[in-house]
Amino acid sequence: MERFEIVEKALQKMLEEKKYTALRDILLVMNPNDIAQLLDQIQPESIPLLFRLLPKEQAAETFVEMEPDAQELLIRSFSDNELKEIVDELYVDDAADLVEEMPANVVKRILKQADPEMRRSINQILRYPENSAGSWMTTEYVSLRPEMTVEEAILRIRRQGVDKETIYTCYVTKDRVLVGIVTVKDLLLVQNDETKIEDIMLTNLISVSTHTDQEEVARMLSHYNFLALPVVDKENRMVGIVTFDDAMDVLEAETTEDMELMGGMTPSEKSYLKSSAFDLFKNRIPWLMLLMVSATFTGLIITAFEGALAAQVALTAFIPMLMGTGGNSGSQSSVTVIRALSLDELGFSDVWRVLWKELRTALLCGVALAVVCFVKIWLVDKMLMGNDQITLMVDLVVCLALLVTVVAAKVVGCLLPIGAKAIHVDPAVMASPFISTIVDALSLLVYFVLAKAILGV
Amino acid sequence: MERFEIVEKALQKMLEEKKYTALRDILLVMNPNDIAQLLDQIQPESIPLLFRLLPKEQAAETFVEMEPDAQELLIRSFSDNELKEIVDELYVDDAADLVEEMPANVVKRILKQADPEMRRSINQILRYPENSAGSWMTTEYVSLRPEMTVEEAILRIRRQGVDKETIYTCYVTKDRVLVGIVTVKDLLLVQNDETKIEDIMLTNLISVSTHTDQEEVARMLSHYNFLALPVVDKENRMVGIVTFDDAMDVLEAETTEDMELMGGMTPSEKSYLKSSAFDLFKNRIPWLMLLMVSATFTGLIITAFEGALAAQVALTAFIPMLMGTGGNSGSQSSVTVIRALSLDELGFSDVWRVLWKELRTALLCGVALAVVCFVKIWLVDKMLMGNDQITLMVDLVVCLALLVTVVAAKVVGCLLPIGAKAIHVDPAVMASPFISTIVDALSLLVYFVLAKAILGV
Repeated sequence: MERFEIVEKALQKMLEEKKYTALRDILLVMNPNDIAQLLDQIQPESIPLLFRLLPKEQAAETFVEMEPDAQELLIRSFSDNELKEIVDELYVDDAADLVEEMPANVVKRILKQADPEMRRSINQILRYPENSAGSWMTTEYVSLRPEMTVEEAILRIRRQGVDKETIYTCYVTKDRVLVGIVTVKDLLLVQNDETKIEDIMLTNLISVSTHTDQEEVARMLSHYNFLALPVVDKENRMVGIVTFDDAMDVLEAETTEDMELMGGMTPSEKSYLKSSAFDLFKNRIPWLMLLMVSATFTGLIITAFEGALAAQVALTAFIPMLMGTGGNSGSQSSVTVIRALSLDELGFSDVWRVLWKELRTALLCGVALAVVCFVKIWLVDKMLMGNDQITLMVDLVVCLALLVTVVAAKVVGCLLPIGAKAIHVDPAVMASPFISTIVDALSLLVYFVLAKAILGV
Repeated sequence: MERFEIVEKALQKMLEEKKYTALRDILLVMNPNDIAQLLDQIQPESIPLLFRLLPKEQAAETFVEMEPDAQELLIRSFSDNELKEIVDELYVDDAADLVEEMPANVVKRILKQADPEMRRSINQILRYPENSAGSWMTTEYVSLRPEMTVEEAILRIRRQGVDKETIYTCYVTKDRVLVGIVTVKDLLLVQNDETKIEDIMLTNLISVSTHTDQEEVARMLSHYNFLALPVVDKENRMVGIVTFDDAMDVLEAETTEDMELMGGMTPSEKSYLKSSAFDLFKNRIPWLMLLMVSATFTGLIITAFEGALAAQVALTAFIPMLMGTGGNSGSQSSVTVIRALSLDELGFSDVWRVLWKELRTALLCGVALAVVCFVKIWLVDKMLMGNDQITLMVDLVVCLALLVTVVAAKVVGCLLPIGAKAIHVDPAVMASPFISTIVDALSLLVYFVLAKAILGV
């Protein structure tokens, strides 16, 4: 990506020096995705200027890859004619995405320039719920009939293919119902051109419905390594396809969303550098507030055991270590379980297996930590640092509390995400920040109860 | 995926009742990826039995998708003839993956059954460093010559295509050097079959080198929405291709690795349910130990300020809230920055922009939290709960410490991952657990210093 920054600076310089012919020559050999990235990073005033240097087809491909802000700016600078040229080149699914992102008055202009068939398709796609396969599909695919010969099929692809998002998987339909799939590879490798499509088509069909959630669709594309998946309506009639390139984008966006939730933030669609400090504040403050206020409980627990702390001052020094280790143990379990849930490796029915596995892991971790902690406190805190308030019993209380905390943290950490999934809440919400707060309170309670019992304070 | 469990149970039952003909009929219409998932979940004894019901080609496709354990078990149960049949059907990159995963004596058997050309290709792929494009590519692609006509090219694809992983992107080479790319779509849509390949090929080439890191390659495939990328050696000679389906797997694995690191765990290639409690223990204990021992610092800080805590007992109650809010603030920033770094949205050169953005966000969050906290402590902790030790000055110290902690946490949280990237350490290592430990110590120091200054304890 460093190479890219060099190109960017060179182009910026040429733009400032108004060397448009040279600029155009460079843009012509660049990939549309790279041009889009470039346009997203230059001064807004220069975007229309650079964009107009591009030939028609490259312009449309670049336009699709740009950020909504820049797209809107461009559309506002377009004449009706320019807009029509771009809209005509768009695939239907990209046009529908655009319409979804733009403000109402811009949408009106776009729809006015679209031809009637595209307008109809856009409207059809927009009827489906957001994040469903229907809202993400394209209605442009190659459809064949079962009684066609291979030769007829190839001819049809050669005639219609130019407008289709993918020609490599063709869908065989009968009365609009999907009955088979045939790939261009199959068609080309058949030796006899008179072979009927129905004799070579795959009938072992995997399809999604218009209402399937987009993340599930993307996982299916990735699981089966397919280029595209057919989308069918309730009557099993073929209505569109979803393609692998969009699946990659969906999976990337879903992962980012999971990570944001796990970090205690409201997910946002804006990229980091495009978000203002106020945007970030809005995404982050609700969780911070919630967790700060709920820490009232830990405060109350400490206040309740004030007497014990006053009698054994050494106990206070170990509170951060206990809470920190508990938090880390819990987040290890929750992160692992959340990821396994989102990869569909785990389901609600696995709850007992998970619990059993985490319980044993927690015991192993807890015992190892407690033993090391016991020795460390004795050697470092008592002997090396000379803290005379530490007695054998105090050391024992700390290490026992540590063991119980680790086990409790891991159990809470694995159960909460699975529970969230069962009640259809995103498991990623149940990640470290949330679990830490619960574990903090738990570990303090355990600590003080043990102190009272063993030290009699 | 629930539907899948039903199929699984039905097949298990048929297996127990030895209804092999019916079983075979069902397996015949199943997708190889689904059969592989099924085989990974049944009793190991039954795997060879079920596998032998599959026809040759489906068997090979299923074999590729299985877990290494089950693959090894199968190979050990194969006769030399059976093994040869499977190996012959494998694509070279899958064969190379297999050889990498298996123990030495199994590898010997596999290589003995491979034909000489495949053996040579496997050895070539295995020479490249792990996680590089070279180790992940396949050497089976369609290559064309620039002077060929479209008709000749299509003929060549029809003859050679059956063994190629993808036929849809063809690579035009001259003296083994890559000079252009042409897709089957281009070939089919050209109206004149006598057109020369050099006249329609794309010469705006994007390729990777054999040593490019696999994550970068996968991100490029996703960025450009390509089906495949050519891999070239130092002399720019074409040596293989990498394909989108593998890119999806790489990105998924890299994301899982990032999340594991961010959760304070050593990444593992085993799936959760396949990992034993001891595996999980081994991955989790190093971080827990490290963080527990480094919490010695927080303990020392508290011990050093024991006098202050004894003079103002109310102060202890707010330690968990301060440390928790600091930890959460820091992890919000680190998670955001780590994700942006791994999506290549950020680089080291953006460090000042990031710092400035985080600083303003931190001030907004810090002030909002401090104000709410101030009111909350007064109304809830003092008036509602009747904690008389809380004075206006104590409340002020807590809220000032909170403000400073939030700002410090966000600054540390954004700088550490960027710093890690600069010294070529995975930024994901610098996530919440690590940052919490630093922030815990920082927040305690700030708290006690403020308490000394304002309360004079």
